[in-house]
Amino acid sequence: MTPILTVFKWSPDGGKGLARDMRVRWALEEVGQPYEVRLVSFKQMKQPEHLARQPFGQIPVYEEGALTLFESGAIVLHLAQTRAGLLPGDANARARAVTWMFAAVGTVEPPIVEREQAGFTDPGQPWYSPARLALLDDRIRVRLRALSDRLGDAEWLEGAFSAGDLMMVMVLRRADDWLLDEFPRLRAYVARAEARPAYQRAYAAQHALYSGAPTDSFQ
Amino acid sequence: MTPILTVFKWSPDGGKGLARDMRVRWALEEVGQPYEVRLVSFKQMKQPEHLARQPFGQIPVYEEGALTLFESGAIVLHLAQTRAGLLPGDANARARAVTWMFAAVGTVEPPIVEREQAGFTDPGQPWYSPARLALLDDRIRVRLRALSDRLGDAEWLEGAFSAGDLMMVMVLRRADDWLLDEFPRLRAYVARAEARPAYQRAYAAQHALYSGAPTDSFQ
Ligand SMILES: N[C@@H](CCC(=O)N[C@@H](CS)C(=O)NCC(=O)O)C(=O)O
Ligand SMILES: N[C@@H](CCC(=O)N[C@@H](CS)C(=O)NCC(=O)O)C(=O)O
Repeated sequence: MTPILTVFKWSPDGGKGLARDMRVRWALEEVGQPYEVRLVSFKQMKQPEHLARQPFGQIPVYEEGALTLFESGAIVLHLAQTRAGLLPGDANARARAVTWMFAAVGTVEPPIVEREQAGFTDPGQPWYSPARLALLDDRIRVRLRALSDRLGDAEWLEGAFSAGDLMMVMVLRRADDWLLDEFPRLRAYVARAEARPAYQRAYAAQHALYSGAPTDSFQ
Repeated sequence: MTPILTVFKWSPDGGKGLARDMRVRWALEEVGQPYEVRLVSFKQMKQPEHLARQPFGQIPVYEEGALTLFESGAIVLHLAQTRAGLLPGDANARARAVTWMFAAVGTVEPPIVEREQAGFTDPGQPWYSPARLALLDDRIRVRLRALSDRLGDAEWLEGAFSAGDLMMVMVLRRADDWLLDEFPRLRAYVARAEARPAYQRAYAAQHALYSGAPTDSFQ
C-alpha cells in the first residue's frame, strides 16, 4: 500500500519548503518511498476526522496501512528505521543521529518558532518592543553559535548525512531570512543539504502544490 | 561498564524532579539499569570538556562506553530500544510511542518553557505585561486541552505505559504549579505516573542530591 501524507491544502509561505510536511517529503525521497498526498484545509484540521489522526490539529500526518503517525520527527525516524538511507548501520552511530533529531526539534527549533510568532503577533500589542525581539534573536544566536562550533568544517553533523542532518537543516531554514547569514558554516551546511536530489524533488513537489492561486482552504 | 549520567551539581529547584536528568533517571529505573552520576557546575557546563559531550552546554549527558548521548528524549529512546520495559513489542505500537515522545518535547514542552522563562525574565523589563503572560498561558492551555481530550479516560496514551508517557509526564510536571489543575485527567495521569516505583526511586535519588545546602556549584 502507498503511504498517505496529510498536508496543508494551502500553505502560508506559498510552498517555500517551510511547512513541516517538507521534512517528511524529503525523507520519503531519500529512502525512495513513493507516497500519496491528502489535503486538509485549516478548518478541517480542527475537526474530529483530522483530530483523530493528529490530536493537536496540525500537519503533517503519515499513514501506512494500520499505522498512523504524527510529529515530523517521529515520522522521519520511522522512515529511517524501516528503510535504508537515513541512518548509519552501526548502533552507536544511529543513536547519535537520533540525538541530533531531538536537538533539532527540542533545542534549536523552539526559540526560532518563538521569534517567528512574536514577529507576527507582537506588532500592535501593548507589549510590542524591538528590545524584546532583539533578545529573542539573541536566544537563537546562542543555539546557532553552539551548533556552528560543533559542526566546524565538517560536511554533516556525524560523518555521513543522516536523519539528524535532515531535521536540523529543516529547522535552520526557518531562520534563513534573518539570522543564518551570521553563521557561514551553517549557511553552507544548509546549502549542501538543499543540493541533494532528494531535497530538490521534495521541494518541487511541495512548491507545485502551493504556487497556484489560493483555494478555498481557509474555510 | 556502568553508564554515567551527567547532572547539575546544584539544581535551581532543589531537586523537585524538574531538571531534565530526571527523565533519564526514571527511564534507567524503569529498565533496571544501574548508573553513576557525574556532577557539573554551571561554570563547567560552558567549558570545553563538557561542550565536547553536550554542544549546547546543558545537562543531561549519558555515556555508555564509547557512546555519548545528549538530549533527554534521545537518551530515553536509546534506553527504551536497548532494554526491555519502555516500549511495546509490536513495531507499530513502538512507532506510536515514539510519536508521543516527539509530541512531548516538540509540541507540549516549548510553550511551557516559554512561559517559565517569561515569568523569570519579564518582570522589571519595559515589555512586562500581565496580558502577554496570560496569552502565553493560553498557548499552553490549547496543547493541554488537546492532550486531555485525546487521553480521555485511558490510563496511558497508548494502552500500556511507555517511554511516550514518561516524556509527556515529565513535560506536564513543568506546568504543575499553575495550569495542570485545570485539566483533572492530566493531573490524574501525572499522579499515576508518579506512583510508579521506578519514578519514586529516580525522584528520591535526584532529591537526595540537591536537598542539602547549595555548594560551590555556581562558580
Ligand atoms: N511538532 C509538530 C509541529 C507541527 C506544526 O506546527 N504544523 C504546522 C504547520 S508547519 C501546523 O499544522 N500549524 C497549524 C496549527 O498549529 O494550527 C511537528 O513537527 O510535526
Ligand atoms: N532539550 C534538552 C534540554 C536540556 C536543558 O534545557 N537542560 C537544562 C537543565 S534542565 C540546562 O542544562 N540548562 C542550563 C542552560 O541551558 O544553560 C534536553 O531535553 O536534554
